[in-house]
Parts: sequence; C-alpha cells; structure tokens
Amino acid sequence: MSERTHHCGTLTEKHVGEEVKLTGWVQKRRDLGGLIFIDLRDRSGQVQVVFNPEVSSEALDIAEKVRSEFVLSVKGTVIAREEGTINENVPTGRIEIQGKELEIINSSKTPPFSISDDNEINEDVRLKYRYLDLRRPIMQETMKLRYRVTKMIRDFLDQQEFMEIETPMLTKSTPEGARDYLVPSRVHPGQFYALPQSPQLFKQLLMVSGFERYFQVVRCFRDEDLRADRQPEFTQIDIETSFLGQEGLMSMMEDLMVQMASEVRGFSVQTPLPRLTYAEAMERYGSDKPDTRFGMELINASEIVKESGFKVFASTVLDGGEVKAINVKGQAGNYSRKDIDLLTEFVKRYGAKGLAWLKFEENELKGPIAKFFTDEEKQGLLAALEGEEGDLFLFVADSKKVVADALGALRLKLGKDLDLIDESVLNFLWVVDFPLVEYDDDANRYVALHHPFTMPKEEDLDHLESNPGAVRAKAYDLVLNGYELGGGSQRIYQRELQEKMFKTLGFTEEAAKEEFGFLMDAFEYGTPPHGGIALGLDRLVMILAGRNNLRDTIAFPKTASASCLLTNAPSHVSEKQLNELHLAVKVEKENGQKA
Amino acid sequence: MSERTHHCGTLTEKHVGEEVKLTGWVQKRRDLGGLIFIDLRDRSGQVQVVFNPEVSSEALDIAEKVRSEFVLSVKGTVIAREEGTINENVPTGRIEIQGKELEIINSSKTPPFSISDDNEINEDVRLKYRYLDLRRPIMQETMKLRYRVTKMIRDFLDQQEFMEIETPMLTKSTPEGARDYLVPSRVHPGQFYALPQSPQLFKQLLMVSGFERYFQVVRCFRDEDLRADRQPEFTQIDIETSFLGQEGLMSMMEDLMVQMASEVRGFSVQTPLPRLTYAEAMERYGSDKPDTRFGMELINASEIVKESGFKVFASTVLDGGEVKAINVKGQAGNYSRKDIDLLTEFVKRYGAKGLAWLKFEENELKGPIAKFFTDEEKQGLLAALEGEEGDLFLFVADSKKVVADALGALRLKLGKDLDLIDESVLNFLWVVDFPLVEYDDDANRYVALHHPFTMPKEEDLDHLESNPGAVRAKAYDLVLNGYELGGGSQRIYQRELQEKMFKTLGFTEEAAKEEFGFLMDAFEYGTPPHGGIALGLDRLVMILAGRNNLRDTIAFPKTASASCLLTNAPSHVSEKQLNELHLAVKVEKENGQKA
Repeated sequence: MSERTHHCGTLTEKHVGEEVKLTGWVQKRRDLGGLIFIDLRDRSGQVQVVFNPEVSSEALDIAEKVRSEFVLSVKGTVIAREEGTINENVPTGRIEIQGKELEIINSSKTPPFSISDDNEINEDVRLKYRYLDLRRPIMQETMKLRYRVTKMIRDFLDQQEFMEIETPMLTKSTPEGARDYLVPSRVHPGQFYALPQSPQLFKQLLMVSGFERYFQVVRCFRDEDLRADRQPEFTQIDIETSFLGQEGLMSMMEDLMVQMASEVRGFSVQTPLPRLTYAEAMERYGSDKPDTRFGMELINASEIVKESGFKVFASTVLDGGEVKAINVKGQAGNYSRKDIDLLTEFVKRYGAKGLAWLKFEENELKGPIAKFFTDEEKQGLLAALEGEEGDLFLFVADSKKVVADALGALRLKLGKDLDLIDESVLNFLWVVDFPLVEYDDDANRYVALHHPFTMPKEEDLDHLESNPGAVRAKAYDLVLNGYELGGGSQRIYQRELQEKMFKTLGFTEEAAKEEFGFLMDAFEYGTPPHGGIALGLDRLVMILAGRNNLRDTIAFPKTASASCLLTNAPSHVSEKQLNELHLAVKVEKENGQKA
Repeated sequence: MSERTHHCGTLTEKHVGEEVKLTGWVQKRRDLGGLIFIDLRDRSGQVQVVFNPEVSSEALDIAEKVRSEFVLSVKGTVIAREEGTINENVPTGRIEIQGKELEIINSSKTPPFSISDDNEINEDVRLKYRYLDLRRPIMQETMKLRYRVTKMIRDFLDQQEFMEIETPMLTKSTPEGARDYLVPSRVHPGQFYALPQSPQLFKQLLMVSGFERYFQVVRCFRDEDLRADRQPEFTQIDIETSFLGQEGLMSMMEDLMVQMASEVRGFSVQTPLPRLTYAEAMERYGSDKPDTRFGMELINASEIVKESGFKVFASTVLDGGEVKAINVKGQAGNYSRKDIDLLTEFVKRYGAKGLAWLKFEENELKGPIAKFFTDEEKQGLLAALEGEEGDLFLFVADSKKVVADALGALRLKLGKDLDLIDESVLNFLWVVDFPLVEYDDDANRYVALHHPFTMPKEEDLDHLESNPGAVRAKAYDLVLNGYELGGGSQRIYQRELQEKMFKTLGFTEEAAKEEFGFLMDAFEYGTPPHGGIALGLDRLVMILAGRNNLRDTIAFPKTASASCLLTNAPSHVSEKQLNELHLAVKVEKENGQKA
C-alpha cells in the first residue's frame, strides 16, 4: 500500500495543483452524470474525490465497486471546485481531488448504523458495535477532548514539579469504604488481592517517602450497584502534596481549572472560586454539590410557620424537623393540581411524606393550605420567599435530611424542566468544612464522611471523643455545575490521632492494626503534614464535552449491570482456571438450591 | 506551620544574606563546640543548618531534641561558609543556614536502616519499610528517572499525533497466552472478568474505529510463576498505528530511542538500528534477544566435524543435530579442568549432555578430545573459530534448540564472568522475521510465537496450511543490551486470514467465534491495515537507570511469591465478601483433604 502524503481534512486551496496520496474511509459515494464522487474520511476530517472517465476509466471502474466504510488508497490532483459547487460548511469545501488511481484496501459490510451524529442510535447497539460508534464525529471529538484534558493536567502538574508515580493495582482489601473488587491469588490459596478504590494509602506513603508532590492518572474500582453516572472502573486524577496546606492546594487546583476551562471551552473562570461551607450548601441548596447556575434556593420557613394552624408544619418543627420551601418564579399559572401531584410523587422518592404548595395570584396566597395561615404568617412567607405575583411556592416539612434530599432534588428537577440552567457556563465552587464523621444507623456506629485518614479541624479536635458528629474535617470538595468533580482533605499524620480516629469509627485496636498498621507504623518515622485531592476524570470530561452520560466519555464502557456488550465480559471460565485459584462457584439454581 | 521560601538543595552563594524558611527531614545532626549542625533534606537535596547559642538559644534548645528523620521547619539566614569548612562535594557546600527559629513538625523513631545508599540492606526489610527505602537517594533518583522517561515518551508520541486512549481493566478472559488474573463478578454469579495481559484486542478495535495513532501507558497482568525480572503487574507502553507499516513504525521507534538515550543517558544511538533475522540471531547468539555488547559468537562447526573420529560430534550431526562452539579468547590458561567442569554443570541446566573443550596452546590444539580430529579438521576448527594462541574453545553438540539455549546462556555467563561487557553503551537492535507459530509438544498443536493476530509475511502465506512452522511473521522485537525491550507486529486485518490463523492454531470454528468473534466481526466493517508495538516500561527504566532488579524501578513491587511485604497483600477476606461473589474457597489441608 502506498504511503499517504496528506491527511484528508487538511487540504485547502493552498494545495491546488499538487499530487496527493490519501488513505481513509468512504463516508459517502454519489454517482452523478457519469462521474463518481466519494467523500473520503480519515482522522483529520474529510475531502471529496471525483472519479472521471476522462481522467482514468480504470479508477472509475474500481470506484464503482466502492461502498460506505470501504478503506481506500487514492492518488490524485488537488483542484479548485467550480463556483457553484463550493461548500463553505466543510474546511475542504473549496477543493476536491481528481482521482487518478484507486485501490480498495479493505471492504465493508453495510454498518448497523450510519457513521454520523445525525440519528439517535439505541445505546445497546452502539456498545455492541463500539468500534463503529467510535467512528462517529462526536465520539472522535470526545476522545480527543479527553486526551487533551488529560495531557493538559499532566503538563500543568509537571510544571508545578509534581511527579507521576504508579501505585499497585493488586493490593489489599480493606473493610472501610465501598465494596472491593477481589482478585483471587493462585500462589496463596484462599487469599485475595483487591483492586484499588483509590491509591489513598500509597499516596500517603509516598509523602512519608519524601516525594512531596505526587500525582497519578489512575484507574480505580468500586463494586457498587451502578447508576447512570457510575462505572465499575473509573479514572481519577490523584494528587498528594506535603508542606502545602489546604489553602495552597485549593489555590493550585483553581489555577488548573482556570487554565482548563479557558483552553478547552474558551471560558473565563473568576478566582478565587466561591466557597460554601457544607452547612451552608445543605441549608441553601439541600445538597453538598449544589448547582449554582440558577437560583431557586431553599428557604427555611420553620420560624414563620412553627405556630401556624397548619398542624403538619407546626408539629414537624416542634418535633425538631424543619419546613423549607422553594419559590418557582412566575410558574403559578403553569402548574395545575395534577402537575403538582406529579411533583409530589417525585419528592416521595426522596422520603418526603408530601409536598405542600401555595400560589401568589391576584395579590393573594392561594391553595388548600392557605387558610391555615394568619396574615402575619403569610406576609412572613412572602417576604422570606421574595414572593411576587404569579409565583408558586413548594414546601416540604420533614426531618432536616429528608427536607434537604427532597427539596434539593426538586429544585434540580425544576431547574431542568423550566430550562433555568445556562448550559454555557462552568460554575466551579468549593464546599468546605464537611463533618468528619456521620452516624450510620445500619452499622450502628460512626463512619467517615470522606475516609478515616481525614484531618479534623484543630478547633474541633476536643470534641473528637465527646461529640464526634460535631467535628468538622479539613476536607474540601470541588463542585462543577452540580457535580462533585473531586474531593480531598488534609490528612492525619500522627499515630496517636490516627488511632483515636479509628477508635471513633468503632475499630478495635487489633482491627485497626491488622488493617492499617503499616500506615500508622509509617507515621512514626518522620511523616510530613500532607494532603491532596482526587478529581474524577470521566465526569470532568463529560461536563467539559457537554455530554450527559459518563459512558460517552469512555472508549469501552460497561453497562449498568457492569457488562461489556462488545466482548461479553464477564464470562464463564474453565474448571481448570477455578481449580488453580482454589475456588468453587456457588450459584443458586432456579429452585433455590446451591449448585 | 510556616510555608517554605526555598528548597534545601537549591541554595547557593547567590542567596547569601537572604532570610529563608525551609522544611525537610534531618539527614544528620552533629554537636560540635556548643553548636549543633543539622543536615536538612528535602526532595531537592540537602543543606547544613547551624544552631548557635549566640544567635538563638531557644532554637538551640529545640535542636537538642532533634534526631535523624525528624521533620523540621527552620527559619534562618544564608551565610557563606568559612574557607576551611567548604564542602565542594555537595551543591550547597559553600553556604550554610544560620538557624534562628526551629519547629519540630514531626518526630521519628530510629529507622531500621539509615537513609543512604552506602549500605546493603536486606531486600525484605527494604520492601517492608518501602516508605523509608524510597527516601534513599538512589530510589528517589530512579523514580524521577522513571517519571522523566514516561513523560518523554508521552511528549514524543503527542508530537507524532498519537492519542492516549484508556482501555478496560475489567475485561474478558481468553485462553490464548499466559494465565489470566480473574475478577469474580458479583452481579453475574459464576462469571469472571480478567485483568488484561495487554490491551491487544482493544487497541486493534481502536484502529477499526479510525483513531489511526493510539498509545497508552498501561498496567498489564500475568499470573505466571515469577522470576527475577517478572512482576505480576507491569507497565507497558502500548502503541498501535494504521496505514504506517512495519518500516514506518520501526523508524519512529528508533527516533524515540535516539531521543531517550540522549536525554536520559547522554548516549548517542546510531540509526538505523542493526537488524538481525530471528534465524541469524539464533545462529550467531543462540538467543532471540542477543546481547551484542561483546562478541564470542556461536560458531557452527557441524560441517567440519561431521565425519570426525569423535563419535559424539559425528553422530549428533548425523542425527540432524549440530555442533557449535564459542571461542573464549585468551582464556586457555585461566580455566582448569575443574573450572570447565563447573561450566559443564552450567550448560546441563539448559539440557546439554556435556561440554567439550579444546585449548590452543603452544600452537597446538590440546585437550582430551584433540586426538579424535585430523589435522585438516583441526585447521578447519581454528579457521572457523579464528583461533589464536591461548584461546579456549567450548563445544556443545545436541539438537539445534539445546545448542542454542546452552551455548547462548554460556556465552552470556562468560561475558559477565570475564567482564567483557561495556556497561556504558546502549546496544539497541531489532530482531525480525520471527516464525509465526511454533509447535507445542505439550499442547500437541501449533501456538502463536507472538499472538494469534500477527500477520504472516506475504511471501510465506502459501505455506500457512501446508507447513505452518515455516511461515515467518511480520513481527519485530526491540532488543537492548540483551533484554527484550518490546515486541510488535503488523496485524491480520481480514476475517478470512484471521479464521485461517485460528484454524492453524487448532481452534474449532465455534471456539474462535466464541472467544474472538467480536474482533472478526469488526474486521468486516472497513478495517485499515494496522500494527504496533509494546515496550516494557519497567525493564526500559531498569536498563536506563543501570539497575539490575525490576523491583528497584517500581515504587511498590511484589516479591517473587507475588506478595506485598508492606501491606501484606494478598490476604484473607470475609465470608460476607465471598458469599457476595458466590464463591467458596477450596484449600487443601495438610493431610491433603479439601477443606
């Protein structure tokens, strides 16, 4: 096969008169007045090739056999298109190639879908034929963007004197955190490696080793039930620093975000980024990753309605819960009772018992519950909600958690439904001062909100034993457009504090030593103060590319049941393989018996 | 803690008079004449800090508590050292810091070994305390070199318009190749993912997708019994291209090696790199990865001795074997019979039945077998072996394979023993024209020498069915100083040929379809000619860093039994975890019963 001289998408009027050799795929073939036109595509774009019997009847004969997605090698001359045939919509639209020689390098069956962005294709079909799906311009662009973003992050961190250091994939299973993927050992019967949920312990050990600035673009694994924005394996930009502190790290990350937003999206990010405490984010948005591209904040009406005649509200406040509302501006006329019933169903999914509502119409608060409020209460509500003619107010009264979950989710839903979100902006913000631990009712103990290595705030240290739930952490999440882009913290670097922390989480001394003894041992040999952050690359790319499905940012993703539709992984393996691993499979048969 | 103003190792006479803040580890503390001297170390190097009671008795008091590997924050003034105390051996040796304020950030127990390169430390101890081992200068340097090499490769490939694309870690188990590490699926009972031995199928699919130039720095896994230069997980520079061809790819890799050797080692590599066919490499060096840093090539003496009176030689040649020899130049006087007996033991490990020898002393061939040869045969041997006074000739007579293995290994051993190897050079070379398949006596079928996707040479295609063993592959290995740095090939890109190849390897049509159907399906949709290469990063770094142990190039390596001495992975997991994965462990108890 002849080597190409140019890439298809790079040819312009400057090349007119030149002999070129091209290779690529047939995007489209058209026959017109005895001529054959072929749009030839390679990674760089496409160009039109014309086969004319007066130039080469031989090439024309071959061109007649050509179909979509055939792989061709073409030799010809770049010529300017005639006036009426110029296509300003494509970069190569002012020229075409007069084909002189044509070779069919490989043929193609008719693809199951056309290689274009024009049609909606069933995702299962796309995943089965991922190699064809990835030919589509939007997928090519997304993979390029992913590569560029990754390269940019690497170069940025290199300039900041970070070193990329690889950490093990076959590592130790630990009970904290999500469910591990396990890898049976052949050499050590009955023992297992775990695939890392993050390189957390290793990156801390690298700080103990004195590398000071570590990063890694690293695959991580969580065997969790998948949601639309989860994958069993995902890629993390993992960062750890010594001697830098929280402010230094946050400021560095802000510089990175500014550069990325500018280079990838041409978007100017103002720094310092806004910061919300966890408490404030929950209070105003019902979320620790608020989407601040629109308002509709949660307004606390508890004080106003706590003595009202509407018993649901009054008793909720009396029982220690709260009543909060959002103002759906100007939508009073657009939401019927039936519409509101649907919203009620929606909030019930988040544990709310109901959704109360009021409309401000004809200068009056209306709705079934309006009669329970005094004029003073009504004025109070209107003032707090900044109510104006035509506004709709939606209330949830429940425990603090349910109110936040339900009303936070409802706010997001309405923001989308009502098209309130400016898709062109990138709203970065920090959420800080997370609680260190939260009480897990199922486990009947405190669990770490981030992980057990997070440093408590100095001023809260005294409460670690007496009131762990009140201790705030030196933890920070970076939020973009309502997604948690990443989270980090300063870490504990002294054995005593780490031991105290494990105790708080209900570890016995032995268990803590068994699981994390090597880390606590390491703390005894001159461990520097350190901290870091991890950013989710898949999600970052998804937002920057303007996609809304993580799978579109991953070349070969898994489905929601963690399957690969292309290769059919996972699959059954041989008895020999199982025997070598000292394993037997226990599968329940349909009658409930173990096989 | 105060933020540092400088890094320890960067301070020079230019900074004299400046106030600086430093953070770092105590390399050494000395007390001398009422003063305390501390060598403070950070990632950049170290600097001497002096605490003087006349400057700050407070700081001196704290300095008295300081021990090796404590973490300190120091504030002081850079001063020039007095004439007699200048140390030209360290970059900061002309200055020191007059310490004014001192804070102990963290303390340290006495480390199990000193943080220096001076002493030999037991490797198990190093691996258990890897976080301290990694503080040693040589380990810091090796990790930096690894990072620089990786960055350089990434930047080189970026300039060549390659894109890094991530492929799955949880993928499908395939029976070809080495043993897979398996990952049980929780969602699909009884089914398993496999960790990739290489992203081979995915990178080929990316070529089908039209990405044209792909690379990935990627972790790969093989569950094999480990040797000194193997790790269960290793990192590969994985490269695949479309439309480039074997010559184009090899030339690009040569450019990369030239740049790397120059930047990392200041070594000038001449291109084009030497090439040996597989047949020639085996003939001359008894190895498909010859170390060409010294001569002592294998000389075929079969023709000369085939009718000699030494029956062992004559009958070996008659039976289709061969007789080959190496000339150990000028060593006749240095090898006693006893020494040669030891060499005989050595070659027996490679299957040889014995080692015959001759010495050329006093212008005469001497040794127990000398009497069996005619003068003509003796002259023939001397001519072929370029024998001179004082040379020792060592012979192995056996099957072609045993001769190559035994004499090839003996050549390497003697090269090392006799110090014939110039450690300062980087001898790159290509080995090409590998056999496509070889017969596996255990499996009783042909197996692929590289893998089943390797393209046969066009001129040999006709023999694929009639005489598979004679077919050469479009495969090429890059060899450096006797190590296989990487291997690659052009790939099959047409379904019919791939089917024929699987048939040659003994696959039934159903098995081929079950395992690799998705790849063969892909070949039907316009697959471009493609090929690639994969380089072993760990080994490349090992050679460039002048180390001789792969573990020294990996931050957290595994031992020969695939254990991590730091974290104690692998380890036992809970019943709950096993139940979730539908697995039971079958461990043989000491009496041989299954548990």
